[in-house]
Amino acid sequence: MKNIQQAGSIIRYCRGRISREDDTMVTEHPVTIKINGEEFVTLVCTPEFIEDMAVGYLASEGIIRGFQDIQHIWVQEDEGYVHITTDRWSLLHRQLFAKRYITSCCGASRHGFVYVNDARTAKSVSGIHVQLAFDDCFRLMNEVLTGAELFHRTGGVHCAALCNTEGVLIARSDIGRHNALDKIYGYCLRTGIDPANKIIVFSGRISSEILLKSAKIGTEIILSKSAPTGLAVELAEHLGITSVGFIRPGSCNVYTHPERITDSGQWK
Amino acid sequence: MKNIQQAGSIIRYCRGRISREDDTMVTEHPVTIKINGEEFVTLVCTPEFIEDMAVGYLASEGIIRGFQDIQHIWVQEDEGYVHITTDRWSLLHRQLFAKRYITSCCGASRHGFVYVNDARTAKSVSGIHVQLAFDDCFRLMNEVLTGAELFHRTGGVHCAALCNTEGVLIARSDIGRHNALDKIYGYCLRTGIDPANKIIVFSGRISSEILLKSAKIGTEIILSKSAPTGLAVELAEHLGITSVGFIRPGSCNVYTHPERITDSGQWK
Repeated sequence: MKNIQQAGSIIRYCRGRISREDDTMVTEHPVTIKINGEEFVTLVCTPEFIEDMAVGYLASEGIIRGFQDIQHIWVQEDEGYVHITTDRWSLLHRQLFAKRYITSCCGASRHGFVYVNDARTAKSVSGIHVQLAFDDCFRLMNEVLTGAELFHRTGGVHCAALCNTEGVLIARSDIGRHNALDKIYGYCLRTGIDPANKIIVFSGRISSEILLKSAKIGTEIILSKSAPTGLAVELAEHLGITSVGFIRPGSCNVYTHPERITDSGQWK
Repeated sequence: MKNIQQAGSIIRYCRGRISREDDTMVTEHPVTIKINGEEFVTLVCTPEFIEDMAVGYLASEGIIRGFQDIQHIWVQEDEGYVHITTDRWSLLHRQLFAKRYITSCCGASRHGFVYVNDARTAKSVSGIHVQLAFDDCFRLMNEVLTGAELFHRTGGVHCAALCNTEGVLIARSDIGRHNALDKIYGYCLRTGIDPANKIIVFSGRISSEILLKSAKIGTEIILSKSAPTGLAVELAEHLGITSVGFIRPGSCNVYTHPERITDSGQWK
């Protein structure tokens, strides 16, 4: 499978001139995760790092707690299947999947959780294991966007990267914003890397889903080129995560937990 | 519920200057659709036109065929619930929901369908009930983007509009790209508007999901500011839909069925 495919011949119009040209576009590839032979979920994704994506997704949904909970994993790439065997799969998991989280006091959850599995698996972070200056935020965002070739070529994917203060450790692009984060989560679980002193850098909006993925991975800082949502800011505040958005050359906004941005207290 | 909420005080950095400012951000609101008292799905959305979104979503999933299949609909807006009663809800619908579409010949579907419910509900269009010139494409896209206030204020939502050749009929913004289309679909079903001679104009990428929503609504042309995916182009070709992407002032690409773009044949 290729990430980019030929679109064939398209008709291009530019300021009165009409031409036929060959064009490329980003691939959408369906991948179905089967657990112990049973169809669990189908994700539409960019076809690379599929094993990591499946591992990250299952951990994110609380089905597995770590890579050691997987007995066997087998990817049929062209057909779009990931077969996983685990003794963690239960009736409870089937019942909780995608179910709304309701607290006893009122309809809505107090801290912004929408789904039961998020409330079960998203961890609060505590302490300060990593700090950045504003200039580091600009440098890391620039490095991630410059490196995202697929993002630039097709305009059709989001990119996410796991960084330390020095620079990018791994970068993943995907047509599905959440898939890019799941690929990073799966990588962290598979390699046993410590997420606490790392940073997530993301090209797109910080939705509640993206913030929660970042919290589940266990990173303390998320940097975004775009805007966060109200629910994401609520969750970031509650979970102890530093969220920085609208990162453009020379400007940005810190929404939550500015204690990890070293020069954020120097108001002028 | 409001579409925009106060973020409280944020820290803004701009070219060496650090300030504390009040900021607004886009609201993410969970809405759970209950069918005959049973939890069916939870969508995270922008809290407006919730009834139309629920109707559009259920039609898109093939649960209902039209507005007449709903016996009763009741929205609890603040709590985020839509209660629907219908005699169309069956074990079959529960089993098919989100399930992968597999054809007998090979793993992947021939025409790009990923989910069973898409293959059941997406209709091919035939004939030409509406045509546009390139200048109409630019004019409609400009009208939709200019009118999308929430899109401009927060940078956090996608906007979709149902248009005729004259201009915008209805426009919907949502943090979830698919929700914006479901809100339009629900409106069409509720009001009985004829979609065949209408146009969908969309601010974001044409993914397979967006193309399929457009096909289910029954529109023949989709215009986008952004790129289509390979799967979306495959589906548009198969379903007879004219797809135009990368619409910028003075330039655009026609990917499929150019017969509905009147001046697309005039190559120079």
